[in-house]
Parts: sequence; structure tokens; C-alpha cells
Amino acid sequence: MNKSFLEAIGIEYPIIQAPMAGGITTPELVANVSESGGLGMIAAGYLNPNQLKVAIQEVKKRVDKPFGVNIFVPSDFTYSSQHVENMQLMMKSIYDELQLTDYKVKELPKFKDQQAIFEQHLQVILDEGIKVCSFTFGLPTEEQIKQLRQAGVYTIGTATTVREALIIQELGMDAAVMQGSEAGGHRSHFLSSFEEGNIGLIALVPQAVEEIDIPIIAAGGIMNGRGIRACLELGAQAAQMGTAFLALKESGAQNLHKTAILNAAEDELVFTKSFSGKWARGIRNEFTEEMKSNEAMTLPFPIQNTLTQPIRKEAAKQNKAAYMSLWSGQAPRLATNVDVTTLMDRLIKELN
Amino acid sequence: MNKSFLEAIGIEYPIIQAPMAGGITTPELVANVSESGGLGMIAAGYLNPNQLKVAIQEVKKRVDKPFGVNIFVPSDFTYSSQHVENMQLMMKSIYDELQLTDYKVKELPKFKDQQAIFEQHLQVILDEGIKVCSFTFGLPTEEQIKQLRQAGVYTIGTATTVREALIIQELGMDAAVMQGSEAGGHRSHFLSSFEEGNIGLIALVPQAVEEIDIPIIAAGGIMNGRGIRACLELGAQAAQMGTAFLALKESGAQNLHKTAILNAAEDELVFTKSFSGKWARGIRNEFTEEMKSNEAMTLPFPIQNTLTQPIRKEAAKQNKAAYMSLWSGQAPRLATNVDVTTLMDRLIKELN
Repeated sequence: MNKSFLEAIGIEYPIIQAPMAGGITTPELVANVSESGGLGMIAAGYLNPNQLKVAIQEVKKRVDKPFGVNIFVPSDFTYSSQHVENMQLMMKSIYDELQLTDYKVKELPKFKDQQAIFEQHLQVILDEGIKVCSFTFGLPTEEQIKQLRQAGVYTIGTATTVREALIIQELGMDAAVMQGSEAGGHRSHFLSSFEEGNIGLIALVPQAVEEIDIPIIAAGGIMNGRGIRACLELGAQAAQMGTAFLALKESGAQNLHKTAILNAAEDELVFTKSFSGKWARGIRNEFTEEMKSNEAMTLPFPIQNTLTQPIRKEAAKQNKAAYMSLWSGQAPRLATNVDVTTLMDRLIKELN
Repeated sequence: MNKSFLEAIGIEYPIIQAPMAGGITTPELVANVSESGGLGMIAAGYLNPNQLKVAIQEVKKRVDKPFGVNIFVPSDFTYSSQHVENMQLMMKSIYDELQLTDYKVKELPKFKDQQAIFEQHLQVILDEGIKVCSFTFGLPTEEQIKQLRQAGVYTIGTATTVREALIIQELGMDAAVMQGSEAGGHRSHFLSSFEEGNIGLIALVPQAVEEIDIPIIAAGGIMNGRGIRACLELGAQAAQMGTAFLALKESGAQNLHKTAILNAAEDELVFTKSFSGKWARGIRNEFTEEMKSNEAMTLPFPIQNTLTQPIRKEAAKQNKAAYMSLWSGQAPRLATNVDVTTLMDRLIKELN
């Protein structure tokens, strides 16, 4: 195993806890992963800049080792109010099912606000002296990357194809996460299409290794020592694992979500963009099935996400996993509900 | 690496040349793989029983080591003549493009004939004392498996999910090929749906290893030593490689097909069922794009396959890759056009 990547970010083991947005990456989760010698990651995705600052400070209180932050990169979007009304009409049966009457959304996100948040997120990274910053759904500008690197931040882009990884390298970033088709949650393609960027790690990593000089981090469906060792053999320098950490005790995922993963099999997962407007993999449920035929009418991210928020919130309140987003990678059979230290100890033992 | 599987079939290295139907697995290809210490496989798929017998005898003339045969398992199908006419109408613009006037098909395949061929294929396996027989698109009966095993044939089923692999084990077969979502050519799901059975090897193999006791062979997107070593780390006992062998000198694939693979990137592949009626992965071309919107109207296999045969034949004659089926796995960037011995030597060296 090439040590240079681990040395560069200052961690002991090639294990990165994937940034999972939506309250999953609690300070305890992130800190305990870093304390065990891996890299914990805060998902800034749905946090405002102040929440991000607080989260970072909470992690710092708990651990003295490096941890990272992941930031969503916003893209512009358009839609009409008619389109919003149509979608709400399509979701009528779900509102009724949940007896949800207050499904109106007061204010829909605006691109310029998203952009402002993105820039504030970057400022928090700089202010807090964060060591590792990764990006999802797109890339910062060359200027922003330069600024981060000059401040000593290790910058990581997320790619779904070799073509995308080449852009990450050309922009001067330090490393690329290659997101395999196995991954749970959102797809992170930004240049390739969803269909083009749906490549299994066994095929994706060895091709990337031939074309890319910067370190490659493999992500998607990796759950245990077997998966990590396989990724290292493929040429990756670390494995980024989401679902493996999602069901752990310290994870902030809802209990229904954890239980759903712990009970799921490999053939119960679907791709849907009905929750957020971006393609993502989760456990098939009533929501994904009922919305399937409306998929083409989905509004862009983050509008669709905002529109489905009342449903997801109410479903969680009523303990109805049927209408929640149950993100999971393709190997839920291997998920466990232990604590971070127990999982990390097991992974480290399996690494040898 | 667990030696028991290699010892059971009597080969030296955990490398299986995938059976690729349609004239690709020439006696030279199969014999040279086995001669190099891997397992060559004849694809019986589109061969009649006599052609299979001849192919087997040609391989035997060339090599004294074990090789295998793969057989398609037929399933019943229904369609109407109206449905056939509609499909031919949809393909009208392609007939015109190729100036193909003689596109009428004299006789369409019948299930009972397919079944008879399947049974004759099994008889050839027994008569010729074949050591390894794998199955695609389904499974033989328990009775047939028993008969083969009593005759000393090592039987291998093909699965796309753990659920399918469990059936293979319950039926008493010796091993299971786990076909990852990375694979080129036809998907081999038989119980799970196409969508359910589309799982990357990094996620699929470690889950299968936990649930299945019989040896697992990993297939899909494996092109070099990195891929093979990764599969062994995941818990597989061998890697089955298709595209890596398809573009080699001894392969019987059409030159246009080889060239297309050698020039393709990871993001130029699509799933289509327009060629054969079954989902398969190949390089995107005019045919896959033009037929995309008609995909829901595709006839069942092997009817659709027979209907598109005049197009594929004429396209090959006219050197038009645009209308040929260009099957490929997800790592075409790693394909080479050397001969079998050169590739096998390289793989064996990379294994250590």
C-alpha cells in the first residue's frame, strides 16, 4: 500500500467515513472514526455555515486528530410554479396516506442563496483550519482550490468516471474519490450523465489508476476488510465507506433507517430521483414505488428535496419507513449496529 | 487463496475465460487459455449440438488440459405475429440505412426446439467427457445436475444476486459464478429482475461469501492482475474474464467489434435489450440509440435476437459497427489485442 496519501492527510489506516448529509455525521461518529485512526468526515451538505462551524468545534473538542468536511457544490436550476403544483398533485395520495395537510412549502431554495452558502462553507473551512475538504455534485473553481491548498487544506473531488477524475486532476486538486455504482445515497456525477457514471469499482478504479496520477479513493459498497483490501489491490489508496458507518450506534441516522438497512438484502435497492431531484440509491419502499412513474416529472435538486421534506419529516414522526429516504449502498447484508471503535478494530484487524 | 476450487477442476491459475457466444470462443482461444493454466470455455449458446461436438473435438486436438462448456438454459416465451410486424416496422429506418431489403425471417425459434437443443447439448457434454459445464439464463433441473455430477462433470450456475446463488447451492451445483453489474454482454438473472440483479462485485461477492458455502467465481469488468487480486480478496476463488479475452488475436469476434472495444472508454457503454430481447451491455452506437425509445416493445429472447440478425449480419458485411452488437464490460480502456499466451503470462505475473 502506498503510504503517501495516508501521510499527506495524517491518518493511520486507509479508511474514510463517508460524509452522509442529513444529520448522520454526528460529532461522536466523526471524532470516533478519527480517534481510531481513520478519517471522520462531517457532511456540510444540509448545514448552514453556523451549524457547520458548531459541528466542527464539537468534533475538535472530542479528538485531536485530522478529520474532514464535505461540501455540496450547487448548480443552477430552473423550474416553473406550475411544475411545483403538478408535483404536489402527484404526491397527493402520499399526503393523504400520512394525513399530511400542511405540505405547503413557504420558500423554495434559490441558486444565489445556495452559492452564498457554498462560499461561506469554504470560509468556515479556512477559518477553522480544516485539514481535508472533499466536494460532491461538482467542483470548486480553480481559484478556490488554489486558495484552499495555499491554506494547507487537502482537496478531494468526487468523480464517477475517468473523464471526471481527469478534470479533478487538471484543476489541481489533491485526490479523487471514485464513486462506484455500488454506492448508496446520491450519485455525484457532474460532467458524465447518471447512466454513463454508473460503473462498478472493479472496472472503475483500475481504469482510473492508469489515467490519473493523483491518489484515488474508492467509494461504494465497501463494508469490511475484504472490500477495503480489494480496493487497495485495485490501486486505490483508501476506501470511503458510508453504509458501514450509517447503522452504527454513534450515527445520527434515524433508527428506522438503521433498522431498514440492518434488515435489507442486496436485491431490495433502487435508484430514485423522486426524493431530492438527483439520482440516489436507497431501499425500495412505498415512496419509491409510487413515485416511479412520475420520475420524469421530478423537479431539479434542491427543489424536489424541499418539496418532499414535509413527507419525510411526517413519515419519521409517524414511524413510517415507507415514506422516508432509506439511502443504502449495495451491501446492506454486511451492515452492523456496533459502535465505531468495535467496527474500526474489526476493520483494522481484517486489513492485515 | 483457497486451492480447493482450482484442484477440483484441475487448473493452475484462478483465471477463467468467459464463454462468449456468437463465434468468439474459437478452439484456438479456448485451447490456448487452458494450455496457459487457466480455464478456456466454449460458449455453446448459439451452436447446434453437432457444431458443439465439433468445437469440443477441435479444442481436444489442441490441448490436453481441462476446458469447459457453457450452455444457455431456454425459458418459455410468448409473442404475437402482430408484435413481430410492429418491431419490423420500428426497425424500418435501420433496414433502409443498410439498404437491407431481405429482412424477412423464414422461421422463428420455438421453445420446444430450444429445449430439445438444450437436452442435446447436455448429451454432448456427457458423451465428450467434458470436465466443467456452466449455465447461463437459468439452471438445469435437479435431475440433470445429478446426472452431470455422477458423470464427473463440475457444474457451475450463474447468479446476479445472493438469492439466486442460494438456489444454485440448494440444487446441488458445485460452484456459482457471481455476475457483477460490470459485466459485458447478457445479464444472467433468472429469479431476480434485471434491476435487482445489477450489483457491483465489490458489494456482491462479500455478501455471497457470507451466505454461500460453494466456491464463488467473480465475473464482470475484470481485466488485469489488479482485478483478479481484488476478486480473490473479496472471497472469490477465481475470476471469469470476458472482454479481456474478446479483443485478443485468437478471439473469433469480428474485427470491428475488437476495434470498437480497443477504442472505447468506460462511459460509452449502455444496457440494451433491443438486440436480443434480453438485457445486455455493449458500446453505445446508432442501433442502441435509435432503438432506445422502442425498448419496451422488444420481443422476448430469442425472438428479438432472430429479428435483428439480418441487421447485424448486413452491418458486419458493410463494415458498419453502428448497427452491430458491440458487447463489452465496463473496463474497455484496459483491453489489449495481444495473443492469449502474452495476456496469460502478464496476468500470471501480476497475480504474485
